[in-house]
Amino acid sequence: MITEIPVKEYKDRIRKVQEILQERDIDILVTFGSDSEPQNIIYLSNYWPAFETASAVVPAEGEPILVIGPESQTIAKDYSRIDKIRKVLEHRESSEPNYPDVKLETYEEIFDEAMNGKQLRKIGYSGLGITNIPVYEAIKKGAGRLEIIKMDDVMIDLRMKKSENEIALMKRSAEITMDSFEAVKKNIKAGMEEVEVVSYVAGTMFKNKAENLAYTPYILSGQRTNQAIGRASHKIIINNEPIQFSCGCRYGNYSSSIGRPFCIGEMPDDYKRILKVGIELQKLVIGTLKAGIPASKVFKKYWEYLEKSGFSKFFLYGPCHGTGIMENEHPFLESDSDYDLFDGMAFQVDIFLGNPSYGMRFEDGVVIRKDGAEEFTSTNREIIEL
Amino acid sequence: MITEIPVKEYKDRIRKVQEILQERDIDILVTFGSDSEPQNIIYLSNYWPAFETASAVVPAEGEPILVIGPESQTIAKDYSRIDKIRKVLEHRESSEPNYPDVKLETYEEIFDEAMNGKQLRKIGYSGLGITNIPVYEAIKKGAGRLEIIKMDDVMIDLRMKKSENEIALMKRSAEITMDSFEAVKKNIKAGMEEVEVVSYVAGTMFKNKAENLAYTPYILSGQRTNQAIGRASHKIIINNEPIQFSCGCRYGNYSSSIGRPFCIGEMPDDYKRILKVGIELQKLVIGTLKAGIPASKVFKKYWEYLEKSGFSKFFLYGPCHGTGIMENEHPFLESDSDYDLFDGMAFQVDIFLGNPSYGMRFEDGVVIRKDGAEEFTSTNREIIEL
Repeated sequence: MITEIPVKEYKDRIRKVQEILQERDIDILVTFGSDSEPQNIIYLSNYWPAFETASAVVPAEGEPILVIGPESQTIAKDYSRIDKIRKVLEHRESSEPNYPDVKLETYEEIFDEAMNGKQLRKIGYSGLGITNIPVYEAIKKGAGRLEIIKMDDVMIDLRMKKSENEIALMKRSAEITMDSFEAVKKNIKAGMEEVEVVSYVAGTMFKNKAENLAYTPYILSGQRTNQAIGRASHKIIINNEPIQFSCGCRYGNYSSSIGRPFCIGEMPDDYKRILKVGIELQKLVIGTLKAGIPASKVFKKYWEYLEKSGFSKFFLYGPCHGTGIMENEHPFLESDSDYDLFDGMAFQVDIFLGNPSYGMRFEDGVVIRKDGAEEFTSTNREIIEL
Repeated sequence: MITEIPVKEYKDRIRKVQEILQERDIDILVTFGSDSEPQNIIYLSNYWPAFETASAVVPAEGEPILVIGPESQTIAKDYSRIDKIRKVLEHRESSEPNYPDVKLETYEEIFDEAMNGKQLRKIGYSGLGITNIPVYEAIKKGAGRLEIIKMDDVMIDLRMKKSENEIALMKRSAEITMDSFEAVKKNIKAGMEEVEVVSYVAGTMFKNKAENLAYTPYILSGQRTNQAIGRASHKIIINNEPIQFSCGCRYGNYSSSIGRPFCIGEMPDDYKRILKVGIELQKLVIGTLKAGIPASKVFKKYWEYLEKSGFSKFFLYGPCHGTGIMENEHPFLESDSDYDLFDGMAFQVDIFLGNPSYGMRFEDGVVIRKDGAEEFTSTNREIIEL
């Protein structure tokens, strides 16, 4: 079984970026990554920055350069599939040390090196929305009088179509997360704080060789289940109240996420009612997804069922969003989505419904195939009373 | 024992910001936070954003406003000590959903609301270095023709002086992390992958009611110990090779970090030699720290010993950095530091030394007092051969 993306696939990714740059007559593409938004840097280099940030500078021809902060030389060298590594002050930690004793470079020097004697005319940028201001200012300074051309689509489009290796890693990531749900079912007891339950989630994930959590696990109980985004807290879990399990890990750089609602003891009738709607919606959406159809068709089917069920007031977003290196990637599938599904797209089917008193989420990863959605996980999609 | 900062202390923090704004004749302060850089938002509101980002808008007089993304209403309401909560699209997730069905506001409307009828003349901003570009553009748009005045010092200075409640939470956070090191000593075995060992770290932290890891745990072995910043990997740990334990958790919103090198079985002589230097440096620095002295004096003593020991080539940074909500906060203590230490500052004493073949870190949290440094942790500061 594969445990990481092969070196060759990283080289192919760089080559694809370079083909796009050549087609569009752009000299250099720059893209940024941080600890919490590393997607583009991991994708191109296998390096996941920590504390400090990073960028990748890809010229239309020749060798790419990974740009890191002053402290990351050894970790970057260990992970990076991009061989040339340079250090720039502005990629430092947010506490802004000065590093008076470390040799650093500027983006002007790095662009010169990337161009290898040719004149730099056009710089493209992918991922402005996740870039911090000091790094972008340093890049603009390096660009001098040249305009920086927004090219978000380059990294989004490349990352949206998954390879078989990527899908294999996502499946394994999802399996590990489902194992962590089994561990929670086995070990959770009334009287525990929500955060204590996370010990079984994180313990299981790392024991199964996940490199990290995909996000802070949500173990949410009682009224707190109404949080679409959440964090396990110090609240004590009691019997017969709703519990939301929304957790994921990152394995071989790829994220997973699973949502399952349950109760310790008997479930309140109103919670059972909404869970039944959630289960049906989950099946309906997964059954509808298929290469070649418009995303809007999926939303329409979801919305029709939701309205018919009488729970449309519980809607916040959904029912799907892209997934990959990040648990949450472009594209969302919403009422105004205007794209068609294609083979190799990966989605989280993410049915969240909430009112002020409680909420529930069923969530599973899938990959879109010509004949339908292939599910990464499907167990425990039922009314669970421990 | 206190488990969180009391509501009154949050109100005091807002009041202190308002006093500074009034002194400087500024109408509004804006500050930003994200999942990985939440410090200013947690400090003012107790809310730690996840997936989406947030800002706090504090007027010189009247009620502050917490600004969040489209999905975070229920989590923000649960945690925030700032009662007014408003939603702005640009605080959305990095996958950039459109939320066509959610009611959102603009910064112009929020500034109007904060000013409560008075004319907005001057906007200050704290934390530009961690702000992402779309949010800053939205804020600039809301400011219209007004210049945004950089006021990083406001949040840095407020956060640098710790209250007794903050110190109590940091101590408990450090204790939990030391417990996780004890769990590693007990359970680690040659043949495990580094990431498997993290299961004991994370398991212990969450069992002890930490809300999260302070950062991805570093369990680094062999040559990988030379990483000043690291992540546990799939490398298999063997007997008699250097191992770096650098881990921390977040408890009651406050971070901790502990660094301890060790071996399974007998330690190589050269590693033992550098560890002895590290232990002496750690004691020397902790013994020197004291309110009233210049930071440069601490660096000087550290550097003199390092040179005398013959290991100055192993230097990368250090020997201290600020700590608090973030494991790594302003100020660093470096060769060019020009400030004096004062009572209530908290530091990580962080001695990292590395060469291409191996590295080691001793690290402990301390708070500066009039008569010296009070240590959060001091056990296991020795040659450990399991």
